[in-house]
Amino acid sequence: MAPLTKKTIEEIQGIVGSDHCTTAPEDRVCYAYDASAADCLPDAVVFPADRDQVARVLALAHRDGFCVTPRGSGSGMTGGSVPVAGGVVMVLNRLNRILEIDTDNLVARVEPGVITGDFHKAVEALGLFYPPDPSSAAFSTLGGNVAECAGGPRAVKYGVTRDYVLGLSAVLPNGDIITTGVRTAKGVAGYDLTRLIAGSEGTLAVITEMTLRLLPLPEAVGTMTALFDDIRQAARTVSEIIRQRIVPRTLEFIDNASLGCVEKSLNLGLPITAAAMLLIEVDGAPLANTAALEKIAAICTSQGATQVTVADTKQAAEDLWRARKAISPALFNLAPDKINEDIVVPRSRIPDMVAALEALSRQTGLTIACFGHAGDGNIHVNIMADKKDPVQAERAKEATDRLFEETLRLGGTISGEHGIGITKAPYLGKEVGGAELMLMRRIKKVFDPNGILNPGKIFHLI
Amino acid sequence: MAPLTKKTIEEIQGIVGSDHCTTAPEDRVCYAYDASAADCLPDAVVFPADRDQVARVLALAHRDGFCVTPRGSGSGMTGGSVPVAGGVVMVLNRLNRILEIDTDNLVARVEPGVITGDFHKAVEALGLFYPPDPSSAAFSTLGGNVAECAGGPRAVKYGVTRDYVLGLSAVLPNGDIITTGVRTAKGVAGYDLTRLIAGSEGTLAVITEMTLRLLPLPEAVGTMTALFDDIRQAARTVSEIIRQRIVPRTLEFIDNASLGCVEKSLNLGLPITAAAMLLIEVDGAPLANTAALEKIAAICTSQGATQVTVADTKQAAEDLWRARKAISPALFNLAPDKINEDIVVPRSRIPDMVAALEALSRQTGLTIACFGHAGDGNIHVNIMADKKDPVQAERAKEATDRLFEETLRLGGTISGEHGIGITKAPYLGKEVGGAELMLMRRIKKVFDPNGILNPGKIFHLI
Repeated sequence: MAPLTKKTIEEIQGIVGSDHCTTAPEDRVCYAYDASAADCLPDAVVFPADRDQVARVLALAHRDGFCVTPRGSGSGMTGGSVPVAGGVVMVLNRLNRILEIDTDNLVARVEPGVITGDFHKAVEALGLFYPPDPSSAAFSTLGGNVAECAGGPRAVKYGVTRDYVLGLSAVLPNGDIITTGVRTAKGVAGYDLTRLIAGSEGTLAVITEMTLRLLPLPEAVGTMTALFDDIRQAARTVSEIIRQRIVPRTLEFIDNASLGCVEKSLNLGLPITAAAMLLIEVDGAPLANTAALEKIAAICTSQGATQVTVADTKQAAEDLWRARKAISPALFNLAPDKINEDIVVPRSRIPDMVAALEALSRQTGLTIACFGHAGDGNIHVNIMADKKDPVQAERAKEATDRLFEETLRLGGTISGEHGIGITKAPYLGKEVGGAELMLMRRIKKVFDPNGILNPGKIFHLI
Repeated sequence: MAPLTKKTIEEIQGIVGSDHCTTAPEDRVCYAYDASAADCLPDAVVFPADRDQVARVLALAHRDGFCVTPRGSGSGMTGGSVPVAGGVVMVLNRLNRILEIDTDNLVARVEPGVITGDFHKAVEALGLFYPPDPSSAAFSTLGGNVAECAGGPRAVKYGVTRDYVLGLSAVLPNGDIITTGVRTAKGVAGYDLTRLIAGSEGTLAVITEMTLRLLPLPEAVGTMTALFDDIRQAARTVSEIIRQRIVPRTLEFIDNASLGCVEKSLNLGLPITAAAMLLIEVDGAPLANTAALEKIAAICTSQGATQVTVADTKQAAEDLWRARKAISPALFNLAPDKINEDIVVPRSRIPDMVAALEALSRQTGLTIACFGHAGDGNIHVNIMADKKDPVQAERAKEATDRLFEETLRLGGTISGEHGIGITKAPYLGKEVGGAELMLMRRIKKVFDPNGILNPGKIFHLI
């Protein structure tokens, strides 16, 4: 990569204004990391105001050969927005307008810097619904969600971000502006560039506008929990609910270690003696919800649940979700370092995965805390360690390797929603074959022949 | 393209067996066309038995430079499986096994030659549901449906084929076998090759196996019709139902010309004096269905429906769908040639489109019959003409041009589910920009550097 010269910085400042391009160390350090442990200082941080400025900065990068790493709030879990090769971090938070919520056609047009949770509130106020709900929704951006193809608890019923992106406006690494997809309910004109860019982790183009599909807001939501003395009973219950052809709105799994940590943080009176808790929601007409919850409660009980509780107030349900969303940061109570892998296995293999994790924890002596979207087989496995201790660091690495091996052996995937970024790049080749990786690398070259956009991501250096 | 030599034919016969590769004119003529008016004779027709044979034939094509056009039942509407450059038509109907229906995980593995309707029956017998339902489902194949990203009436609620494809096994034009995607409920490991190949109209790879997502079969279905004296009232009713945040399972529109033709064919006692009929279904719990149908009936009446009827027997509902699915062929009663375009507009613009079509019919003197998936804005517009009459042929061409112009002006797309193939290739550039088309052409080159797989499709020759 070409270094960023003083002259180039001045040109960038000419495009975005000198207030919106900084090289001050105290600013650069704020944009050096994401929610993974990765950390690399950029040479400059640029805050474009609109698509035109994004395009002009990228045209400059194309001409001068410096690299650009786009980002939103930096809440990614795999280093996708960490500027590993230095250069410019392009922060898209100023492109933060909800341009349109079209209640006649159930679509919205938004800029990438809109906070996901704000968008939820805006559409819900109009009786509409945007299902993707990563746990980071209170601060992550829609642009980041689309770039990573974020999921969340509601994916079990409603699918992931990809399923709600109808069309994009984006800027190619050479500064060309493109428009993909449609703003209608469906469309098949040419290759699906929309879903190629969605989930490409900011490596193919910088998204500057998104057309998102909305649904009518479900009439009501019912929430319940089920407690188990044996984690394997909880795992089997997840499979059994799906086997009974019930697809709840959410079907979350929280193990004992996770329950304990989050209770310590929030003091909500969570059942910290349970081996595992399932947090289940259904949505639809109130009567149908009641019937579904009763059916699910019966399945939980038949599988050995020691307690089944329906949340009878909105506050009770909200507390449960507050707890669920606080787990990830709370786990640092257990150890200073956390390796968080969002593996997915076929839902019926969750009991096998749980058994494998128990064995792995015993063998390595490391605490492994699990929670996540069990309903779609997506378990967040957190290997807790103190990496300053070389023995623990080595064991954590070994546990990660074996976790991925077991995941693939069970027919799963190494990432359900966090993407590959840099932290999973060394493992991608274990899941994706050589011919397929070659196609992906060549597609990258089609979009970014000079390799200046978010370099070092997804593909392990060879 | 290289011609197919006698020696190459013998090599192909060595791979698939001499019974499964034919050059007889009477066989070749059967594989020269699809459901569009296009028609080109292949040099040979090959029927591989499995993925290995597909790969070996493609490796041969790669070595010798002859071209290969894959197909299933040949029911496509835009010439996607017509061998415009001659060479080999590769018929995938022998790869017709349902390999697995996994009731624990709600996924199925199937070969491309499985008839879509057979698959519907197989999963429904297990209480599961595969929503995509193109009108050709009784004879079209799942492989063709995935290659074209087929839709159907249920797309308004359930989305299109793309939304149900989790992973693929496919053969590249050089004979390399690839596996894409996952067999879990979600996954984001690398670029989304699965959805790039789905909808690529057989131009990137030959699909040999698909992992499809299933849903629980809805408990019950409720069916109703609403008749209107004014087609614009029917169009406004469609918009109003969506605006009231009701998303029915199907929301079909049938105009007077279509009603008349299909009644002439089937003699079902359809309301041939109505200006338009809406055919609406909801699914879910029986009580919820009743409530939804009542709400929809009230909207229909408030918008001017002259008659609203709930189908009270399964037979009555089946008759309505039999009529709906028979419209497309029945239209030939109106004129010997039919230009069938599956345009989509934002749902709220359907009234504008209906008005524009009335004007177009008046101005050209041609009958334009409309029906289709109004709920998602996808109207099948049939321009009826006798192309042997040069004046009518010219007017039909002019009407098509103006239809697409109007579609794009209203914010729509030129294809909702039929794909581009050869018949829409001249129009693709009106919807998709130059930079985007260049990306698509380069992606084609990544997969098929020698241009031997299904040449002449999607991209207009330049």
